[in-house]
Amino acid sequence: MRRMKIPEILLIESAHRPGSLASILGVIGDEGLVVEHLASVRRDQDKTIWEITLEMDPDAGPHLRERIDALPNARLLGRSDRVFNRHRGGKIRTVSTLDIGSLQILRDVYTPGVARVCLAIRDNPALAAEYTAISRTVAIVTNGTAVLGLGDIGALAGMPVMEGKAALMASLAGLSGVPILVEEKNPGSLVEIIAAIAPSFGAIQLEDIAAPGCFEVEDALRARLDIPVLHDDQHGTAVVAMAAVRNAGRQAGQRLSQSVVGQVGLGAAGIGIARLLLSRGTPRILGADLDAAARQRFAALGGEPADLRKVMAEADIVIATTGVPGLIRPAMVRPGQVILALSNPDPEIEPQAALAAGAAFAADGKSINNVLGFPGLFKGALEVGARRFTDEMLVAAAETIADLAADHDLVPDPLNLAVHDAVTAAVAKAARDSGA
Amino acid sequence: MRRMKIPEILLIESAHRPGSLASILGVIGDEGLVVEHLASVRRDQDKTIWEITLEMDPDAGPHLRERIDALPNARLLGRSDRVFNRHRGGKIRTVSTLDIGSLQILRDVYTPGVARVCLAIRDNPALAAEYTAISRTVAIVTNGTAVLGLGDIGALAGMPVMEGKAALMASLAGLSGVPILVEEKNPGSLVEIIAAIAPSFGAIQLEDIAAPGCFEVEDALRARLDIPVLHDDQHGTAVVAMAAVRNAGRQAGQRLSQSVVGQVGLGAAGIGIARLLLSRGTPRILGADLDAAARQRFAALGGEPADLRKVMAEADIVIATTGVPGLIRPAMVRPGQVILALSNPDPEIEPQAALAAGAAFAADGKSINNVLGFPGLFKGALEVGARRFTDEMLVAAAETIADLAADHDLVPDPLNLAVHDAVTAAVAKAARDSGA
Repeated sequence: MRRMKIPEILLIESAHRPGSLASILGVIGDEGLVVEHLASVRRDQDKTIWEITLEMDPDAGPHLRERIDALPNARLLGRSDRVFNRHRGGKIRTVSTLDIGSLQILRDVYTPGVARVCLAIRDNPALAAEYTAISRTVAIVTNGTAVLGLGDIGALAGMPVMEGKAALMASLAGLSGVPILVEEKNPGSLVEIIAAIAPSFGAIQLEDIAAPGCFEVEDALRARLDIPVLHDDQHGTAVVAMAAVRNAGRQAGQRLSQSVVGQVGLGAAGIGIARLLLSRGTPRILGADLDAAARQRFAALGGEPADLRKVMAEADIVIATTGVPGLIRPAMVRPGQVILALSNPDPEIEPQAALAAGAAFAADGKSINNVLGFPGLFKGALEVGARRFTDEMLVAAAETIADLAADHDLVPDPLNLAVHDAVTAAVAKAARDSGA
Repeated sequence: MRRMKIPEILLIESAHRPGSLASILGVIGDEGLVVEHLASVRRDQDKTIWEITLEMDPDAGPHLRERIDALPNARLLGRSDRVFNRHRGGKIRTVSTLDIGSLQILRDVYTPGVARVCLAIRDNPALAAEYTAISRTVAIVTNGTAVLGLGDIGALAGMPVMEGKAALMASLAGLSGVPILVEEKNPGSLVEIIAAIAPSFGAIQLEDIAAPGCFEVEDALRARLDIPVLHDDQHGTAVVAMAAVRNAGRQAGQRLSQSVVGQVGLGAAGIGIARLLLSRGTPRILGADLDAAARQRFAALGGEPADLRKVMAEADIVIATTGVPGLIRPAMVRPGQVILALSNPDPEIEPQAALAAGAAFAADGKSINNVLGFPGLFKGALEVGARRFTDEMLVAAAETIADLAADHDLVPDPLNLAVHDAVTAAVAKAARDSGA
């Protein structure tokens, strides 16, 4: 499980004197904390209240409070409710796409008129794609066993993430996401439940289901259902990571197709990345993981299991997804290596340390956000009525995302709608071309 | 299973001559058909195209076509696609309630900020009601075994009805309805599947599930879940029927509390009505059904099984829900009886025939639309966090609906939002008062 730094949003009052804010930020910096966001939320005669967003361990609070309160022109008022306020009442809702304002419309969309549409679908089930919302609707399914980096917090506590995904699907791709929380940890039973409700949806996004069960669940559903199924923690993350790897290699003058890739960590994300790189013809991938079953899974894909030392010694491009901060020591870095230490919030090696140790390029996972992938992946698949996700569709998404990054970035802005439109088009084309 | 008349929407061209439209409508009337809706959809130099909505048996078409084409100033052009056009692309969608327009909002509603909300819910599950949409979201679940009067047409073909319910919940009560199609006919397995996904929802509406399985499914879910569960075909229909019965009795000068009620048909709707009348203290209810298990179920509630002849001979108020047109012959009617023959589209006895045979009041089921009940029933229950539906809540809804009908109507206009607000308030109050 990854450790998780939690955003803290502090409300701090400062007097209207030159240097007040600077002294507050100085204390925060001295405590080793990075300012993520800063806004003035109230301005009085002689003072301003600032809302300062940090990412910190919850236990770092008291010390910081003392030091801020000790400043002559500042006072820590408490925490902001901003994040909670944004989640209040939930983040999604179902709306009617018609204005049901007259008896005649009511009788068309409900009884008795609806019977005609029901009978047409009974006689030709393919018409459901045209006369229902199914083909624009994605189930976002979790059992809550691996939510973010928080571990097994239960399906209910995972709901804010599922609603977040649904809100992003709606905002970025116009899809209807439906969170489905399933109280079931046994992979076989989970498959039965999801398969039983699958007719309601055009596609299924599996989300925050712990390894190794997630592999079994996805494989079984893909074999059984004729709609696209995607475990986002594997493939969505892999798509965005692969885009970043490609751009990192490009910036360091290394081509993926001629490089030895080393993977440190073979969990859901690591296996997803390996699958994608191997499907794209990467000649040699070494992979390290403490878990024997993970190494076997990797070998079955065509990867070469190895220990950490060997991976670091032989790989041209290193991709780390272990969740273990500081796992890669500077002495392990081979001069000229490309290093992507993707674990959040703390990477396996800080980019500066990797560069100081001789890496040609180094980055962490801060910009690797799977929201770049899943909206367009699902929209593209649904637009052409694909029955499954193929590796070609995932690679097309990764290459499109990579191509749209600005020169010195690894990936583009996830809120740029043009990115999602381009991913949608690329995935739709790849689906058609690969007979998905 | 009820027979189902299907709306036919004809496109008929008429010349601009006085009497053209009258002659078309005359032919339709001669064929025994009632005009449900009429609109001009195109007007040219010398002719108009009319869209005429009828309810008819599909095989009645050819004869009507010949007779219209034989008119000097008219021509039948074909069928209108109006109903299908209204269902195109589905009738609902999920939207984000936030504008995710900046990186900072993205980081609050998705990672990393969402982790804070997840942890708060893990530590106190009751917070899910505040920080997710669960408490405004209703699963609309069917296995497609008894859709409308169409029978077992399968879950997929039932989707237009489920989306219709969701669209109405959104329009009339601001609730988020989520259609769930379940491919499972075994009641026990259906219960397991619904229970497994229940944490996703604030309440569950069971819909179009065939009797007797529907009783077992509802009973088991009510016993197992701590959220409100309602089989709409039983209780939603019963609520609206009871409102109509009360107003029918009032118009005929009969009080429910002092009358012998006779039920003809003890399926899902009949049993729901019996349960509600008995819980409200109706002194004696006779019930007839050909199915022995249905009669047993009725007896277990406190009803008195009887044959059709005895029901008609002894009841002051007759409620028929058999789906068998013409089952009640005029000779069976006792002078002074109140008769509600609720089967759609064709009643057990036409109101005119019942009145001619001496009934004090007679009506059919045309106005008995369960859309008057379910939006407010669910909103009222969810607003106060009720854990179940009690009979008190159903009776409160029925009495509110009855009270809001105009003097000579049985029930009010289902598109009047004030009705749904009033039902919501009455149900919420009854939920609090009955400790639901």
